[in-house]
Amino acid sequence: MKIVKKISLLRKDLTLLRRKGGRIGFVPTMGYLHEGHLSLVRQAKKDNDIVVVSIFVNPLQFAPNEDFRHYPRDLKRDAKLLKGFCDILFAPSSDELYRKDFCSSVEVKGTDEALCGLSRKGHFTGVSTVVAKLFNIVLADNAYFGRKDAQQAAVIKKMVSDLDFPVKVHVLPIVREKDGLAMSSRNTYLTIEERRQAVVLFQALRSAERMAAGGIRDSAKIRQALEDFIGHTPSARIDYIEIADARTLAPLARIEKDALLLLAVYIGKTRLIDNTLLKVKKLAVTSGY
Amino acid sequence: MKIVKKISLLRKDLTLLRRKGGRIGFVPTMGYLHEGHLSLVRQAKKDNDIVVVSIFVNPLQFAPNEDFRHYPRDLKRDAKLLKGFCDILFAPSSDELYRKDFCSSVEVKGTDEALCGLSRKGHFTGVSTVVAKLFNIVLADNAYFGRKDAQQAAVIKKMVSDLDFPVKVHVLPIVREKDGLAMSSRNTYLTIEERRQAVVLFQALRSAERMAAGGIRDSAKIRQALEDFIGHTPSARIDYIEIADARTLAPLARIEKDALLLLAVYIGKTRLIDNTLLKVKKLAVTSGY
Repeated sequence: MKIVKKISLLRKDLTLLRRKGGRIGFVPTMGYLHEGHLSLVRQAKKDNDIVVVSIFVNPLQFAPNEDFRHYPRDLKRDAKLLKGFCDILFAPSSDELYRKDFCSSVEVKGTDEALCGLSRKGHFTGVSTVVAKLFNIVLADNAYFGRKDAQQAAVIKKMVSDLDFPVKVHVLPIVREKDGLAMSSRNTYLTIEERRQAVVLFQALRSAERMAAGGIRDSAKIRQALEDFIGHTPSARIDYIEIADARTLAPLARIEKDALLLLAVYIGKTRLIDNTLLKVKKLAVTSGY
Repeated sequence: MKIVKKISLLRKDLTLLRRKGGRIGFVPTMGYLHEGHLSLVRQAKKDNDIVVVSIFVNPLQFAPNEDFRHYPRDLKRDAKLLKGFCDILFAPSSDELYRKDFCSSVEVKGTDEALCGLSRKGHFTGVSTVVAKLFNIVLADNAYFGRKDAQQAAVIKKMVSDLDFPVKVHVLPIVREKDGLAMSSRNTYLTIEERRQAVVLFQALRSAERMAAGGIRDSAKIRQALEDFIGHTPSARIDYIEIADARTLAPLARIEKDALLLLAVYIGKTRLIDNTLLKVKKLAVTSGY
């Protein structure tokens, strides 16, 4: 595995590989890799000739009050984890990606008005801007994202479709710890006691899945039940509970088709997100004839 | 020359050509081609193996009160003019480029706060968004723009640099009519009398060049002289006269290095733009030693 820090050098390597007809798979990350990231990298390796993983803690997607400075970083550890799956690890500096007088942005409209966007104004424009840059640099055939960041995946898919980026976006399943907690680099912020309580997100999802499977169609009813349920966990504070269209993430008052349940919950000071598909059983239709 | 209307078909053709190692030159236009456009196409033909010209009157870059509906269109005439220089003419419909629920944009900050942006709010975001899409579709090695639209060229160059689009942008000289009027598809809007008076833009530029060459460094003085000069033309109404840094287009109070003079003037109801480089003669420096 080669570690590349300069855009120009990465481009040189990839141009050569591309001319030979090699298919390029790309996994953009902020590093501090866990099994969730690695599942993306392994899939990329299966689907492509060359796998590029980027590690870049993107300042644009953090608000001033957020955890940019404290976000965990360990390039050596990450490089070790990637060996055998990843061909090129792209780890640019902030100055390499955001040069003097940088002032452009890529925006998918409406992302600040829903779900994580509401409490993280500008976050998704930061994400779509850096991903647009990385897409332009890597020119991958396939790019891989995790379903845990469901809104991010929806924003990237919309950006790619609207702006005709020449890449296929794959969104892969959430990878969970043994007790069900969705893997996240931010889990390292949790104290031992908080880590124990953090399973409440997963338990809430499971409980909602059961309610939907049991025939409850009213989103407000499910949300209320989850509020009560999460409310019993001392260190938990709900940011949002939303039931939304699985593709557009538009809120759904009733679950008439498969819908996405999305959660953001603070455990202590750490904001965690998770989501699951609420499946609707097809009802037998009695015809009048 | 092949005329292609679908993104998917254009991509298929270009992927094949690219695999053979062909260099792609791209000239994005709104059609109703004149010698200014054709000079770009000819240069593209010189520099590349394949030339793609797009013709698309982009609704995103017109404000509701502007001339989108009346903008001149004549694909047959354009196709005829391009024969021999252009390999693929890409002429998509509006529905092909802006599909259902389109809601993404590419923005270079500050473009609404200067020059044409002030009287055409949102115009440059419309331009950068459609050019980003076209760049992603064509994936050209080289793209060609005219210097008449100096602010547009600066915005595109900034977008390409900031967002790492894998294309080299070339900005070619203004092509003029015999009397000096810069060629523009919008010149067709002028009445015969207006067309006669429209030369005032070119004459104003020449007069400013002489003032700068004569040692006048004070931008306000040059602008005042041009206001007076243009003011004598009955059908002319000034939108702006600006002297700016040739690269960033930031206004300059004094002309200490080569600067760009930019004009926007209504002739009747037709808004015309033009610009020229004000060259500063190097003064002999008398050393104290």
